Amino acid sequence: MPSFSRLIRFLARDGHIYYGDAILPAHTTDIRAASTAQIITGDIFGTHSLTNRTASIRLLLCPLSPTQIGTIRCLGLNYAKHAAESKMPIPKYPVLFYKPATSASGPTDPIPIPLMAQEAEGLDYECELVAVIGREARDVPEGDALSYVLGYGVGNDISHREWQIARGGGQWALGKGFDSWAPFGPGIVSTELIPNPQDLSLTTRLNGKEMQRSRTSDMIFSVAKTISFLSRGTTLRPGDLIFTGTPQGVGMGRNPKVWLKDGDEVEVGLEGVGTCVNKVEFEKQKAKL
Amino acid sequence: MPSFSRLIRFLARDGHIYYGDAILPAHTTDIRAASTAQIITGDIFGTHSLTNRTASIRLLLCPLSPTQIGTIRCLGLNYAKHAAESKMPIPKYPVLFYKPATSASGPTDPIPIPLMAQEAEGLDYECELVAVIGREARDVPEGDALSYVLGYGVGNDISHREWQIARGGGQWALGKGFDSWAPFGPGIVSTELIPNPQDLSLTTRLNGKEMQRSRTSDMIFSVAKTISFLSRGTTLRPGDLIFTGTPQGVGMGRNPKVWLKDGDEVEVGLEGVGTCVNKVEFEKQKAKL
Repeated sequence: MPSFSRLIRFLARDGHIYYGDAILPAHTTDIRAASTAQIITGDIFGTHSLTNRTASIRLLLCPLSPTQIGTIRCLGLNYAKHAAESKMPIPKYPVLFYKPATSASGPTDPIPIPLMAQEAEGLDYECELVAVIGREARDVPEGDALSYVLGYGVGNDISHREWQIARGGGQWALGKGFDSWAPFGPGIVSTELIPNPQDLSLTTRLNGKEMQRSRTSDMIFSVAKTISFLSRGTTLRPGDLIFTGTPQGVGMGRNPKVWLKDGDEVEVGLEGVGTCVNKVEFEKQKAKL
Repeated sequence: MPSFSRLIRFLARDGHIYYGDAILPAHTTDIRAASTAQIITGDIFGTHSLTNRTASIRLLLCPLSPTQIGTIRCLGLNYAKHAAESKMPIPKYPVLFYKPATSASGPTDPIPIPLMAQEAEGLDYECELVAVIGREARDVPEGDALSYVLGYGVGNDISHREWQIARGGGQWALGKGFDSWAPFGPGIVSTELIPNPQDLSLTTRLNGKEMQRSRTSDMIFSVAKTISFLSRGTTLRPGDLIFTGTPQGVGMGRNPKVWLKDGDEVEVGLEGVGTCVNKVEFEKQKAKL
């Protein structure tokens, strides 16, 4: 069992990178508000311990180190109103796609937009509950599924609609898999603090303006159902992430459509977890192609 | 630069697992025919050396260890006649999808078929050239792209057409990503031995009967073009695999259709590399769901 409440990974003022249990100020549950943390040593997915030492947080990093990020699974169309705005039918089974591990990034990291994704319009945000797998799972029943979760974060499934749809040949992977296009965090909140992930509010703000607001109770396939389904014939491993789909309000579903621009600031938030704020940065260098 | 010609990973008769450079008998280029190998020590993707010691091969394993397998990228519809038999248009850009690292397996490993994939017909084979990335690549031009390749193997992109297509909501990932559904090997042949990957014959035999025969010259997007394209805005890492698509002759494209059955033996082969022979094993235990 994890010994933490709100796992973070951070650059401390002493110049070191630590895992820690975030110490929150009163009257907030947003991990981003933490300025200190109790240091955790050892293997987050194995033997680790919460020490008595604290450290000052200089910068929150991706909650898992690059070598710990496993497979990133994502669901499409897992909220009924988002399926409707996407003009797609309600799926009968979870619709699965992947992002590469290189797309994972942290709660305040910039989102680099490569030249390829600047060739056409279509850059979009998707606020999602992210479940982090804590121990190996295969063929697990729905009733046990949440016991395989290390904790929850909030993530942004950055998507380029032109490469995802028109130029992707029907497969969404290409337009969603660029480097750092899956920021998540700000930390990983334990399942003790969130025993029921199906009644949390989700929000997206673009340059301060609310764009998405929904609740995880509107998911078509619950987190438990999703984990159970995805584990059929497939081993889920510690460090695997599941992005559980986005509710309505994405830029593609609006009239007129809203696309992210260079310098935009996107905030995704999940109740009880906090917010990730990532700035869109169009890459300027000439591609070597 | 890699110091090997034909990299293998194997269980030796002395009970240890080694990396090695396969020593081939005369008159064959099929790595599966090797009975001994020169032992390689160190990090395959970094400093390593070819020792003077040899070992007897008891069993060829997946050419990379489970912890070295990175992201598995696959192309769909990358041979014109396969696109035609799939009743799909020739793609304008490479059509990308992913398999999880847990789908990688070795050249003689069984292919377990979970109960979920026994619910409906549609189990199919896809013989493919597999390029193994040897060093980090981002935004690499087509002319340099092959210098990022560690070597080539042959793989089988096992696919369940019902879960891939009808039940997948349009996304192919689900019906292709089960445990051990991406056997490859029998080893990794260096780019020195295969300077041009675009003129090799590919074959599939099902229980000894030829089902696919084509040449890599028929690829729509060459290996170099594919690597260059996939590296745009996305970092490819050592240990990433690229399954470069299958030619015509898959079971789905036949009349009548041919689906893999319990106990079937599928052999995929690539000229200059060798063959993988994997047996289809329907899982018998009751799912816990």
